[in-house]
Amino acid sequence: MFTGLSAFPITPVTGDGIDEAAFERMVGRIAASGADSVGALGSTGGYAYLSRRERARAARLAVRSAGDVPVTVGVGALRTRDVLEHVEDAQEAGASAVLLAPLTYQPLNDDEVFGLYEDVAANLSVPLVVYDNPATTHVAFSDELHGRIAHLPGVASVKIPPVPADPGQARARVAGLRAALPAGVTIGVSGDAAGADGLLAGCEAWYSALAGVLPEVCLAVARAAAAGEAERARALSAELDPLWELFARYGSYRVVSAIAVELGRACEPNLPRPVRPLDGTGRRAVAAALDTIVRTSRSPAASSIRSA
Amino acid sequence: MFTGLSAFPITPVTGDGIDEAAFERMVGRIAASGADSVGALGSTGGYAYLSRRERARAARLAVRSAGDVPVTVGVGALRTRDVLEHVEDAQEAGASAVLLAPLTYQPLNDDEVFGLYEDVAANLSVPLVVYDNPATTHVAFSDELHGRIAHLPGVASVKIPPVPADPGQARARVAGLRAALPAGVTIGVSGDAAGADGLLAGCEAWYSALAGVLPEVCLAVARAAAAGEAERARALSAELDPLWELFARYGSYRVVSAIAVELGRACEPNLPRPVRPLDGTGRRAVAAALDTIVRTSRSPAASSIRSA
Repeated sequence: MFTGLSAFPITPVTGDGIDEAAFERMVGRIAASGADSVGALGSTGGYAYLSRRERARAARLAVRSAGDVPVTVGVGALRTRDVLEHVEDAQEAGASAVLLAPLTYQPLNDDEVFGLYEDVAANLSVPLVVYDNPATTHVAFSDELHGRIAHLPGVASVKIPPVPADPGQARARVAGLRAALPAGVTIGVSGDAAGADGLLAGCEAWYSALAGVLPEVCLAVARAAAAGEAERARALSAELDPLWELFARYGSYRVVSAIAVELGRACEPNLPRPVRPLDGTGRRAVAAALDTIVRTSRSPAASSIRSA
Repeated sequence: MFTGLSAFPITPVTGDGIDEAAFERMVGRIAASGADSVGALGSTGGYAYLSRRERARAARLAVRSAGDVPVTVGVGALRTRDVLEHVEDAQEAGASAVLLAPLTYQPLNDDEVFGLYEDVAANLSVPLVVYDNPATTHVAFSDELHGRIAHLPGVASVKIPPVPADPGQARARVAGLRAALPAGVTIGVSGDAAGADGLLAGCEAWYSALAGVLPEVCLAVARAAAAGEAERARALSAELDPLWELFARYGSYRVVSAIAVELGRACEPNLPRPVRPLDGTGRRAVAAALDTIVRTSRSPAASSIRSA
C-alpha cells in the first residue's frame, strides 16, 4: 500500500462538526476509483485542526467507507502525548498505517524530531509513514535524519516535498534519499504539481491532495508513470496546470476545498477557521480551471470531473 | 499592566501533568519581586503543548498565586474554536488580559490572521495582547496588519520580536509600528537579549522569559531603562550576556527550564515531549553562566539568583 496513488480527501467541517455524509462519500469515491490507498486526516484532511474525538471518528468513517482499500491515518500533533493517543485511536479504527509529521511550535532540533519518532515507533502495531512537509512543520529533514528515523521499527515509507522540476536533479534527489533509507522503505512524492516528476524520478508513491477529490485524473498520471510512459505522464500532468497554478497561488488546501464545493461534494465553508474559503475571485478561477481541463483534456479520465 | 516588566514563567510538567506546587511558587516569586504583570501560558509557559483542562487549571493557579499582580493568559491554538474556549477559560479563571499569537499549520494569509483576531475580539471581556512571534508561528506581521488588528475593540498591547541591535534602527522600528497603532496601545519587546534595547527604543513593556525565573535581574534592567539611565540599563543587560548566548544557541524555552532545575525550582524533565531538556553539556553551560553572572555582576539583584 506504500506504492502507487494515495489519495488524501478533505475532512469537511461545518458549524456542527464533521460533515460525515460528505466525507464518507468522498472516501467511497476514492476507493471506487482504483486508487491504491486512502490518506485520511492528512494536511488536506485538516488533522491539525480537529479534536481527538473528531479525528477518531473520521478514522472510523474512512476505514468503513474505503472497504478493501487500505487507509493511512494522520496522527501528528504538537505534543508527543497527543500523538500517542491519536495512534491508539487510529489503530482501533482499523487504520492500515499511520502518517506522522513533526508538528512544531518551539523549533525542534534533530534529536527531538528523532525522539518523537522513536517514542511513537515504540507504541505502534501498524506501519508508519514519515511525513516531511517543511511548509507546515518548518522542520528541515536532512537525508541523515531521514535515515536515522527510517531505521526505526515499523517505518514503511517517507512522504517528501516536491522534487526539483529538472529530471536529472529530481533523480539525484530521490537517489540521494534512497541511499540513506533501509531497503523496502518506499519514497512518496507530494506537492501535486510534482507528482508526475516524482514518480518518473523513482518515487514509488504519489501522496496526492488533488486525488482526494479528483482521483481519476491523478490515477491516469500515476498509471502512465508506472508504465514507464514518461511523456504521456508529463502531458497528463500538464493538462492539470490550471489547477497547479491555483495550488501555488492559494494553497492546495483551500483549492481542493473549493473544488469539492464546485462539484457539489461538500458545503461551503468546509474548512476550519482561522482558514477561510477562497473569495469570489478564487472560486471563479477554480471553476474556470476545471472547465478548461474538461474542455481541453485528451484523457478519458477528465470526463470524471463533471460527472456526478 | 501593559507597561514595565511582564514575567513569563514556565509551566513545569511531569509524567502526571502540571507540577502545580512548583508553578505556584514560581508565580508567587514573580509577584513578590515587584514585576508589573505575570504572563502565564506564554510560549515559555508551553501553552501550545497543554490540554484545555491543563491550561484552565494553570490559569486559575496563576491568578491565585499572583495575588494583586495582574495576570495575562495565553490563549493561542491552531483552531479558532479552541482559541475561543481558551478565552472563556482564561476569563473564568480571572485573567486580567489574554495573549494571542496566530498559530499556524497551514500558512495563513493576512485576512485569515485578521479574521482570527476579529473572531476573538467579538468574544472578549478583557483586554488582548497581540503576540507577534514569527519564530513559532511563521506569520510575518506587517505594520499594516498590526494596525488593522490593533484597531479591533479590546486590543491593549502588541508583543513584538526583538528590535534591531542598532539604537537608531530600533527607534525607527518602534516608531514605524507605533504610527500604525491607535493611541494607547502599548508596544512590548520580547526576545530577552533585546529587552533593554527595546525599552530604550521606546517600547513601554518588556515581555520577558528570563523574568519568569529570574525576575529581580530583569527588573533591574527594566527600572534603569524606565528611569532613562540608558547606559546603566545596557550594562545590566550585558551582564546577562552569558545567558543571552545560551538562549541563542539552545532556545530560551530550554534554557529557562534548565535554570529552574539548576536553582531547584522545578524537577527535570519539566518540558513536554517532543521538546527535550538540555543535555549534560548544555546543563553545565547554564550552571557556568549563572555562576559567572553572580560572580561578576555589580547589581544587587544578582544576589537573588543563588538565594533560595
